Amino acid sequence: MNLGSVRIAPAAGELVTAFFEQHTYTNIAVLVDEHTKKYCYPLIKPLLPKHLLISIKSGEEKKNLETCSHIWQQLTDKQFDRKSLVINLGGGVIGDMGGFCASTYKRGIDFIQAPTTLLAQVDASVGGKLGIDFNGFKNHIGVFKEPVAVLIATDFLKTLPWQEVRSGFAEIIKHCLITDAAMWQKIRKRDLDKQKWEELVPHSVQIKQEVVRQDPTEKGLRKILNFGHTIGHAVESYFLAQTRKKLLHGEAIAVGMICEAFISMQKGLLTEDELIAIEEFIFAVYGKVKITDADIAAILPLTLQDKKNEKGKIQCVLLEKPGKAVFDQIVTFKDMQEALDYYKN
Amino acid sequence: MNLGSVRIAPAAGELVTAFFEQHTYTNIAVLVDEHTKKYCYPLIKPLLPKHLLISIKSGEEKKNLETCSHIWQQLTDKQFDRKSLVINLGGGVIGDMGGFCASTYKRGIDFIQAPTTLLAQVDASVGGKLGIDFNGFKNHIGVFKEPVAVLIATDFLKTLPWQEVRSGFAEIIKHCLITDAAMWQKIRKRDLDKQKWEELVPHSVQIKQEVVRQDPTEKGLRKILNFGHTIGHAVESYFLAQTRKKLLHGEAIAVGMICEAFISMQKGLLTEDELIAIEEFIFAVYGKVKITDADIAAILPLTLQDKKNEKGKIQCVLLEKPGKAVFDQIVTFKDMQEALDYYKN
Repeated sequence: MNLGSVRIAPAAGELVTAFFEQHTYTNIAVLVDEHTKKYCYPLIKPLLPKHLLISIKSGEEKKNLETCSHIWQQLTDKQFDRKSLVINLGGGVIGDMGGFCASTYKRGIDFIQAPTTLLAQVDASVGGKLGIDFNGFKNHIGVFKEPVAVLIATDFLKTLPWQEVRSGFAEIIKHCLITDAAMWQKIRKRDLDKQKWEELVPHSVQIKQEVVRQDPTEKGLRKILNFGHTIGHAVESYFLAQTRKKLLHGEAIAVGMICEAFISMQKGLLTEDELIAIEEFIFAVYGKVKITDADIAAILPLTLQDKKNEKGKIQCVLLEKPGKAVFDQIVTFKDMQEALDYYKN
Repeated sequence: MNLGSVRIAPAAGELVTAFFEQHTYTNIAVLVDEHTKKYCYPLIKPLLPKHLLISIKSGEEKKNLETCSHIWQQLTDKQFDRKSLVINLGGGVIGDMGGFCASTYKRGIDFIQAPTTLLAQVDASVGGKLGIDFNGFKNHIGVFKEPVAVLIATDFLKTLPWQEVRSGFAEIIKHCLITDAAMWQKIRKRDLDKQKWEELVPHSVQIKQEVVRQDPTEKGLRKILNFGHTIGHAVESYFLAQTRKKLLHGEAIAVGMICEAFISMQKGLLTEDELIAIEEFIFAVYGKVKITDADIAAILPLTLQDKKNEKGKIQCVLLEKPGKAVFDQIVTFKDMQEALDYYKN
């Protein structure tokens, strides 16, 4: 399947071979973490031209300036020039950070997003958002820049633990809830292990691309992709700083989607039945994250740093109905407090 | 004078007032160093809306990731949102680094270049090149991004030490040598203190803007602005790492222009008379930098990191004649060695 610079196929090797039949570079680097080095890199290594392998430790907590310095240093040491290429082989952390490093090295060299997780395939690798975390704030430093290609090999999904698949599925649920009621009705009737990725991955990529095409720098419509993320990101940031429990991105967004669907109902948008259908499905897939009153008190202020806010007001995406989202909805701490209390109980 | 987003006038206050009559922001920061805080900031402070002052230490050696972290932290602490503005009040270091920080904070907020040195007015503030140094390599990490406005107040030049004026003048000489033979003939007949800045600043800005407009991301024509910089940057980097002597940017570019004019003659482009006219004028203005054989041996390898190089070949801008430059000219270490030897003797 061909969606602009996005190519989707089962086998990674096929995608890589086709790309290098049409492109030449003076230097090539492949960025991996210990997981993708072991499970994904061997599938493309024999098909790549001569290249440098840059390996970093996995994890959101490595998505920082220090790791960027390490990547920039390796490109510098190997005298990568402006006609060089970086291939980001991994999940969102690798894609966001590798893309940011490439976009800022000598003021920008080409890069390929080769997402290996479901989350990155349906979300992070499309849309040109790049960046790193900064002192606890997610994606706080970054740029908008399109990769020269996004190569999505669905075979990589077979290498993932089920929690990773479940995490990525949250963005698929989101895409359906904000734009496609019919697909929402289809997926909510199937268990996680019965979902059809070969259909859902292109479907999600297409939704995201169309939204991004209409509003690349997030002045308006693109904000709908933030559904579940105002509260979800705050929940994720909070648990990232905790030692007791790590939440995957999609697990946090699942919490956020229930809370923001609840606020949608409170504001007279969603009906109670629609809310219940959403929360029943999400609880069935993700279970319930244990959140205390003390957690909630700490989570609320973190929503203030959301990049979509203006003038200190918290702007949220709400659902008018399944398949239809509205953005720039102002919500208060009280709205969010009630939503998190609702989730908790 | 009005050249796109560039405004040129004697008084800074007038430019600032006109800008804020047309633009509104949720938060505003002014980035200064100890010099511009003392001499330039007081001229605009009463005319600015409520703002945050961010002060950093002056000097190319502060143009690094650590200082960026300090700037990003201040914007974060004051909860700057995406509708915020950063005003970079200073020379090239402030403009390059402040612009880079603004362009990457929350994936990009607006910024104004308010250049206070002659060098920044005629060169750094126009063209959207932003960045910081990385482990000794100049502007190694950065992006291309246009400011929302460039406000050039020529009155600021009166606050400068003469060495700073002389440094900026090197870029004016360069602009004449690469595109305007008539203006070259005019300036070379005047001493430094007889140059007419009110004429030369707009002239240089116009040349630079026109070249950048035709080739914003430096795929071709824009490379001519690099005349004198292949060797000049290497000389500058080398002396930056030395404790014995610091060279200002323009002083290093003056060395580079003589060397690259010499190479132009060696390749049969410039005549000997043309070379002599160039070197006599530059020596009269800048004197001669003492460079030893050991210095030359250390300078040569530094030319390899120039961002314009491809496939390990050193690409240089040469002069066909005064007022006409050619780019993508391959030069060897031997060519550059001979040029530096010529300069030395």
